[in-house]
Amino acid sequence: MWFIGVDGGGSKCRALISDEKGRTLGVGLGGPANPLHGYEQAVASVMSAIRDALHDAGLERRALTESIACLGLAGVNLPSLRQRMLAWQHPFAGLHLVTDLHIACRAAHDGGDGAVIISGTGSCGVAVVGDTETIFGAHGFPMGDKGSGAWLGLEALRYYLLADDGFVERGALYKAFQQHFQTDDALAIIEVMAGKGSSAYAALAKLVFNSAEQHDEHAIAMLKDGANYLDQLADKLLRCGPPRLTMVGGLTECWQPWLRADIAAQLEPALIAPEAAAAKLAHAQAHKRSA
Amino acid sequence: MWFIGVDGGGSKCRALISDEKGRTLGVGLGGPANPLHGYEQAVASVMSAIRDALHDAGLERRALTESIACLGLAGVNLPSLRQRMLAWQHPFAGLHLVTDLHIACRAAHDGGDGAVIISGTGSCGVAVVGDTETIFGAHGFPMGDKGSGAWLGLEALRYYLLADDGFVERGALYKAFQQHFQTDDALAIIEVMAGKGSSAYAALAKLVFNSAEQHDEHAIAMLKDGANYLDQLADKLLRCGPPRLTMVGGLTECWQPWLRADIAAQLEPALIAPEAAAAKLAHAQAHKRSA
Repeated sequence: MWFIGVDGGGSKCRALISDEKGRTLGVGLGGPANPLHGYEQAVASVMSAIRDALHDAGLERRALTESIACLGLAGVNLPSLRQRMLAWQHPFAGLHLVTDLHIACRAAHDGGDGAVIISGTGSCGVAVVGDTETIFGAHGFPMGDKGSGAWLGLEALRYYLLADDGFVERGALYKAFQQHFQTDDALAIIEVMAGKGSSAYAALAKLVFNSAEQHDEHAIAMLKDGANYLDQLADKLLRCGPPRLTMVGGLTECWQPWLRADIAAQLEPALIAPEAAAAKLAHAQAHKRSA
Repeated sequence: MWFIGVDGGGSKCRALISDEKGRTLGVGLGGPANPLHGYEQAVASVMSAIRDALHDAGLERRALTESIACLGLAGVNLPSLRQRMLAWQHPFAGLHLVTDLHIACRAAHDGGDGAVIISGTGSCGVAVVGDTETIFGAHGFPMGDKGSGAWLGLEALRYYLLADDGFVERGALYKAFQQHFQTDDALAIIEVMAGKGSSAYAALAKLVFNSAEQHDEHAIAMLKDGANYLDQLADKLLRCGPPRLTMVGGLTECWQPWLRADIAAQLEPALIAPEAAAAKLAHAQAHKRSA
């Protein structure tokens, strides 16, 4: 029996194969695997990463029929997407489907219970305590994900356009936009950003952190608003009674000095990789079944 | 010599043909004509509306070569789109290209100078005084268009999701969302709204106005924020020295009671249709050329 863990992401996905004793036999990499952005591509990327991991482990493709797979994929908490993924004619002996958020939380705590705040391109909070999983946020762009890079980038672009029209004053953040886009023409900036998704907005988040260091009051207000949300998120997660609290994602370092001192002080490091946590979950799932 | 005016919009476009004396000879209707959403379709819709108007006027297609056309199209203030439209091998004796906003402003004041606040799906302010046109806003969704329906809908959905997670209190606006979407499942609402454009968000604006009537404090705060922006926009437009100020667009009636009393009191009605204003501009353009 083999155990396959997959962490599906918007730009790439990672797979890991382990044995009964939890030893890693092989790892693999695949393309974008967010079923929200295309079911076919997500499934193809997942299988590509798994084949890569099989090869790395020196296993034949038929090993799949003797494997339990656990996939952590974005959006599978949405009923329609969950139905579609579960209808997949997969090649495994068993398939366990969870969200990428669940995997991230399990990974932060080495497969055990705990809570995690995620702030990268998107944001959310997840607590897993016993059989209870609680999720806050993870609502996506542009309507949700407060405290994320995409949210911060959208707030910043909104500010820039109002400043350009003279509705609010122009400070360091305004200048940072012009430097970043190498133009002082707001229409040219709009042309670049029109129709763009969360990643393009998240790329603007660093302008806000940099401008706050230069005492830009608008940047500081945005960061205080975002940090206040993340503090409240931490409070909500802690009320679920997790043994550990972790923060992961590309903006973790940036937010640290803006968080309430008591929250920042109790953040502990993430322990293992998401795909390793997924493989552990596949293993646990197999034992649950045989128990 | 004939004069053709076209008002291009995101869902349809209207054409009007007039003669030397400004008499309307025919009108026509075409499909979506926003070149931001597709250049080919915009040009096809414009030509379809014009052919329709030619037919209505009892004119042959070759009359086009003796016509001056004025097109009011969204996005032609963006350099790349303007270049592309100007490269069009059009069939007219002359082509005058202006934004849909310019046409809206001219229409509000019967072809004369003035200023206009637009609040429908999007928002902006335009002042035309002599040869000087000043535009505020018109930045699009989701980064701009404060005080528009799409902006209000986005603010409302953001509020709903925060309330659903327990970060802010649930009032009339929260309940209005559940009634509107006929579900109390936030994930189902996200599934409906994910990837949607400005029109889908603008359709939520009425929930905010209705909830404010029921004294929902979050709805009231959003409307005060939007109205404050529109007041400042009016102040900026009035500083351009326009002889008249008008407000047009689907939310005009809704905003009226929220605007500062001195602003609301000086709003005057729009005078002619945008396509008629475009035909007038074509006429004026011809006289400028021959002068």
